[in-house]
This record gives sequence, structure tokens and C-alpha cells, in this order.
Amino acid sequence: MIITLTTDFGLQDAFVGIMKGVIATINPQVTVVDLTHGVPAQNIIIGALCLRHAVSYFPRGTIHVAVVDPGVGSARLPLLIECDGSYFIGPDNGLLSLAIGASEPDSITCLSNPEYHRRPTSASFHGRDIFAPVAAHLSRGVSVNAFGDPLPQFVRLLLPQPRHQASVICGQIIYIDHFGNLFTNIECAELTALPGTALEITCGAGFHLTGIAPNYSSGHEGELIAIKNSWEVLEIAIPGGNAQQHTGAKIGDQVRIAVRP
Amino acid sequence: MIITLTTDFGLQDAFVGIMKGVIATINPQVTVVDLTHGVPAQNIIIGALCLRHAVSYFPRGTIHVAVVDPGVGSARLPLLIECDGSYFIGPDNGLLSLAIGASEPDSITCLSNPEYHRRPTSASFHGRDIFAPVAAHLSRGVSVNAFGDPLPQFVRLLLPQPRHQASVICGQIIYIDHFGNLFTNIECAELTALPGTALEITCGAGFHLTGIAPNYSSGHEGELIAIKNSWEVLEIAIPGGNAQQHTGAKIGDQVRIAVRP
Amino acid sequence: MIITLTTDFGLQDAFVGIMKGVIATINPQVTVVDLTHGVPAQNIIIGALCLRHAVSYFPRGTIHVAVVDPGVGSARLPLLIECDGSYFIGPDNGLLSLAIGASEPDSITCLSNPEYHRRPTSASFHGRDIFAPVAAHLSRGVSVNAFGDPLPQFVRLLLPQPRHQASVICGQIIYIDHFGNLFTNIECAELTALPGTALEITCGAGFHLTGIAPNYSSGHEGELIAIKNSWEVLEIAIPGGNAQQHTGAKIGDQVRIAVRP
Repeated sequence: MIITLTTDFGLQDAFVGIMKGVIATINPQVTVVDLTHGVPAQNIIIGALCLRHAVSYFPRGTIHVAVVDPGVGSARLPLLIECDGSYFIGPDNGLLSLAIGASEPDSITCLSNPEYHRRPTSASFHGRDIFAPVAAHLSRGVSVNAFGDPLPQFVRLLLPQPRHQASVICGQIIYIDHFGNLFTNIECAELTALPGTALEITCGAGFHLTGIAPNYSSGHEGELIAIKNSWEVLEIAIPGGNAQQHTGAKIGDQVRIAVRP
Repeated sequence: MIITLTTDFGLQDAFVGIMKGVIATINPQVTVVDLTHGVPAQNIIIGALCLRHAVSYFPRGTIHVAVVDPGVGSARLPLLIECDGSYFIGPDNGLLSLAIGASEPDSITCLSNPEYHRRPTSASFHGRDIFAPVAAHLSRGVSVNAFGDPLPQFVRLLLPQPRHQASVICGQIIYIDHFGNLFTNIECAELTALPGTALEITCGAGFHLTGIAPNYSSGHEGELIAIKNSWEVLEIAIPGGNAQQHTGAKIGDQVRIAVRP
Repeated sequence: MIITLTTDFGLQDAFVGIMKGVIATINPQVTVVDLTHGVPAQNIIIGALCLRHAVSYFPRGTIHVAVVDPGVGSARLPLLIECDGSYFIGPDNGLLSLAIGASEPDSITCLSNPEYHRRPTSASFHGRDIFAPVAAHLSRGVSVNAFGDPLPQFVRLLLPQPRHQASVICGQIIYIDHFGNLFTNIECAELTALPGTALEITCGAGFHLTGIAPNYSSGHEGELIAIKNSWEVLEIAIPGGNAQQHTGAKIGDQVRIAVRP
């Protein structure tokens, strides 16, 4: 049994280690895997994207705990969602929603039963006091409905969608990775649907490139390329370099694809 | 059985991974949990605070290894302390002392028996050559007194204590977390003892705030709040922001609390 | 059974977590240990040095996966090398070669059998799609020759070697750790072979020091010392400080040792 952790806690403090201690105290047998603790502070969308693009690589039954939680201790609800045989635990602020996507959850539970929380429960660290202990008890076989009352719905994030016009797609940068690669919201499947494969790509104000490269090595060193990446979206990159630093691009910048006339 | 690791090694090099290799070679069954490797280089007090505020979340019998060790290879002693059913291993420079606190250790051992060290033993990496192998052997059931000779005492850190005057407490900032939250040495229990709850708080030279907020969401975005945090101390924070960056505060800056007349 | 991971992926994204999910899906029993994910982007030599100086601390049979892979998706081959009872998996770009050193591998295999890859196999993330699944299947007992065809050789890195002249050694800085310690390519064994022990050391353009210190504490605070370090090479350091920041030294800078006349 696996519990994954996705947070904006960073690794400077012992917060992540403390959550692992709480989990191990309740279920010493469970394996804990860090997805990332490098989500920018309070950036729910980035956390939701990281989780969305990781969950399919874990076995059925995995429990995903995510904590990017500016509303901790307020009226925002603590959630457990069961969907397609996996479990998602975290605050009801949209963080879990991209991983669920269009799927219909099997259950949505408000973690209202304090029996499975640490007590006293702080108002500032529900990762330690609610989400970690609930995940650990769930991994031991406690049934979903023991953790609280069912909810009819949960907060869903809306990602910006690319606009399509005949032979043009206008998308945007939604994620920038450690290498400075620029991830767009244009899915590979959309490229395939374009009427032609000779593509002109414009990134931000002034960067132009042509065609989709088969891999990072096929471009010239120092020149921007477009590639279908591991999220199965269009990515702008520089072989051996850092496209973010080279272009100054930031999340939200427009990326436009046109079929060459 | 769990071994935790707290160091100032960072994660850029393979030093932490090497310690885990040494442990796994001796005891493949033990679970290793990172508390943090982000202690600032050679900052014993920060390491001691991280350890102190994490150990209570681990099960009885956990072995805590901590290495912030500017005196490695010198005359400073390598220690094993048994206290309240948990074990603490590291250099005798105060690093372990805040986690022990006022408790009376069951045993204090100098790790003088080279039989449980890697040999040859380097003068620069006792985490690898002494502390990790001792922790691993201990986790396999080797008895405490096999590792060396008993010691009458160990080095204890003195944290600055807040000064109390009738309706005023003068404390200071002792820790700043990844979010820029300012942790003070004023414990929540001390606030409760104040003659009144209408509090005026001054942080550093020029920042004033009023009252204790119930959670991060209860303030106005961009305005400083005071909150009782997960260490059960008073913390200065900014909802959705970074109090350290906003105030320029640093460890040692004064925080003063007065009951409003 | 242990799988280690060494990459330049950093910890900001979920890439490392995804590799662990792939591994756990295939073999839930295996223990995964991070050596480091802090190799500078696309720096094969630094990755190779980290791996080289870590593998001896892991038990026989350990599977070491390393991914610093600017050529991912191109013609560079994916490798599995069996050597001295351990296994090395990664791209054939020299990354694995320093860990093998002068040893004669028991087998060199091109990972040409797609049966053990994730499909579809991306052109940008072989860590997830080839190296992690092969490591996991290997840890379950799949035999080496099932993964593909034998190769006669693999790419080997050449590290710069120090030059010796009678009573002088001219080496260079090859690694700088998290503490700013400057690791040279001068091995401790070479120092022992010098005709005398009274050494004059010059680091870069203008920094001079004398003798080898027994440990970090034996110098004066703020003054450069030379020490035999945990890689068993000569290191330039500053007690309680950061030698890289103090000297401005960088990888490739010359370090010269002469026996004092």
C-alpha cells in the first residue's frame, strides 16, 4: 500500500518528515512516496497539475495526499475522494480536482469525524493533524464512510483551454519545469487533428519556431524547439539549455500554432 | 523500526544517500525517514529546534540521527542518548539537547567502541562512518551499552527565554520557515497566562499588530497577523504572503506582547 | 533489494515521484533510495562522480539507476551493466562509467527489448518509460539477458588526471559540495607517495596554504585548510565557512602541491 505526498512545504523544515512520522505511527507498513514538495507556496493550480500528471503511474489503491492549503483552519472543508480505485485526500480548494478530471468519483467525503484526527487539532497544520492520520487509517482498511459525511460535490479548477480556429491553435504556458522547459495547455492529440503537419509556432511576443522536433537532440544547441513531452502536451525547450531563462517566458504567456500556408 | 535523519547536508550531493546505503547494508528492514537536510550549514540551534519539534510525532523506539557537526573529527564526542523510549544519535555539541529537553535520559553513551564504526573511519564524515552504522546496529537490537562507555552528561543548548513583566512579554524570533513565517520563543501557554486577551504585538523595529488570529485566513491579504502555530508558539505571518520578506525580520529580532490597557 | 536513483531532475517537479510510482507498480517490495537529484542540469561528469563515490556503500546486488540524459530519445543507447555483483542502468553517455572504473563488467546489455518498457514510450522521459521499469523488473528476478542484446563496450568518461613532477603534483578542482568545499582530483594515496610531508598548496590564482589538517576544527576560523576528505581526495575547505564563496574557485581551477624545500 502506497501513500503519496504533494505539498508546497519545501524541504527546509521538518514538516514533511513530521507527516511521515504521524503516518508511520498509525501504519508502520505503508510506503510513503514524495511526489513533490516544491509546489510554489500556496499555488493550488501548480499543485493540482503535478498531481494530475503523476497519479496514472501509481498502482490501483494508492492514496494521494495533497496539501497546498492557504485556507487551513478556515471554513474550507477537508476532503477524501475515491475515484477509479484510488484515493485523494486534501483541502477542498480545487487541488485534487485536476487529478479526478472528468471522472465520476465513487464517493466524496468530508473528513468531519474527529476520531481519526490528531487532537488537539491545530488551525495551521492539517497535513499533520487531519490529512496524514486519515490517509494512514485508510491504508489500514478503515472504510471511507467512517471518516465523515458524504458531500454532493467538491471545488473544481478550470484550466485555461486553448482556442481553435480552423488551422490555428492559441494556447498558453501553464507549467515551467526544473529545466526551464515551457509546458503548454495544447495537448498532443490536438496537434494531430490539425490540417497539416508543417507548423509555425509563436511563443510569447517574439519567439518563432517551425515544426515539432522528435527529441531534444534534434535541434541546434541554443535554438528553441517544440516537442511533444511526457505530459503529452506541446513543450517549448532548448537543447542543452533553459528555455525559460532564454525567453523570459512566464506562466500565462500565449503560444500560437498555425499550419503553414 | 524507524531511523530519522536530520542534517545540514542539503540534497545537492549524495551524502544523505550514502548514509542510507550504510544503514541498508547493516539492516535492510529498517525504514529511514528524512526529517530535514535543509538545516543551514553548521547551524546547531536550527537543527536542534527542528529535531525537538518533530520527535513527538514518531513512535516509541524511533532512532533519531542528527548531524550538524562543525567539530567532526575533533575531540567532540559522538553520542547515543536513550530517553523516554526513543534514541538520539549525533555529535555532543547540543544538537540533540532540545529534543531531550528537561527529561532525564535513561542512558548517555559515548560511541567509543570502534567495532560498530566503518573502518577506516574518516575525520570528515562521521554521519557515514559512525552515526549511521551505530543507528543501524541499534535498530537490529544491539544493546546500548555495547556501543561505548557511559557519560555523566552531555552538552545542552540554552535557548533565549522570553522576559515577563506583569502584562508584557518580550520574546524574540527563533526560527523562520519556508513560507517566511516568523516563529517566536513565546509559547502559547504563556499567552493564556496573560491578564487579558486584547494583545498589542510589536515585531522588530516598526511592525505593530493586534490580537491573535484563529487561522491564516482570518486576516486581510497582505497584513501581518499573529497566530498560535504548529510548534505551539506565537508566530507572525502574512496571509497569502511571506512575513520574512515583508518585514525583513531575522532570527534574534525582538517580539513584544502587551495587554492593551 | 535496493534501487538507487541519481538524476538531474531536481525536486521541484514530480518526475522523481513518477519514477517511484512506476517502480512500485512493478515491484512493491523494493526499497528505493535517492542518491541525489541535484546534479546540475545535463552535467554528466558531476552525475558520474556522485554515483562513483556512493556505490561502495550499498550492499551487493543493488541496482543503481542514473539519468542525466541530454540525448534522450536520440540514437544514444539505453544500458544495463552488471559489474562486481551490482547493476547500473542509464543512458550510454559515460554517466555510469566512473562507477565501473577499471573493473571488467560481467555483462553490458542494450535495453533493446520493448517488452520491459512502458508503452507508448516517450522520447523525452526514458527515466519513467525505460530505466525505471527495467530496474523494477530486474529487482523481481528477470535475467539480465532478457532486457536486450549484449554490447561489446560502453562510453567511458576520462577524468582529468593530476600531473606529477618529482616533488610537485598539479591537479584541479573537480567537484564542489553543498558546503562550498573544493574537491580535487588528487587522491590521498598520491600525497602519501610524495617525498616529504611538509606541503605547500596553491589553489587557483592566489590562495596559498600549508600542510594537511587532520580535521575541519584544526584550522583557524575563516582560513583555508587542506584536508583528506570522505572521497579520499584532497579537499580545500574553510572551518565554519564556505571555501567556494571565499575563493571564487570553480570546477577546473588548478590546485598545485609542492613539497617544501
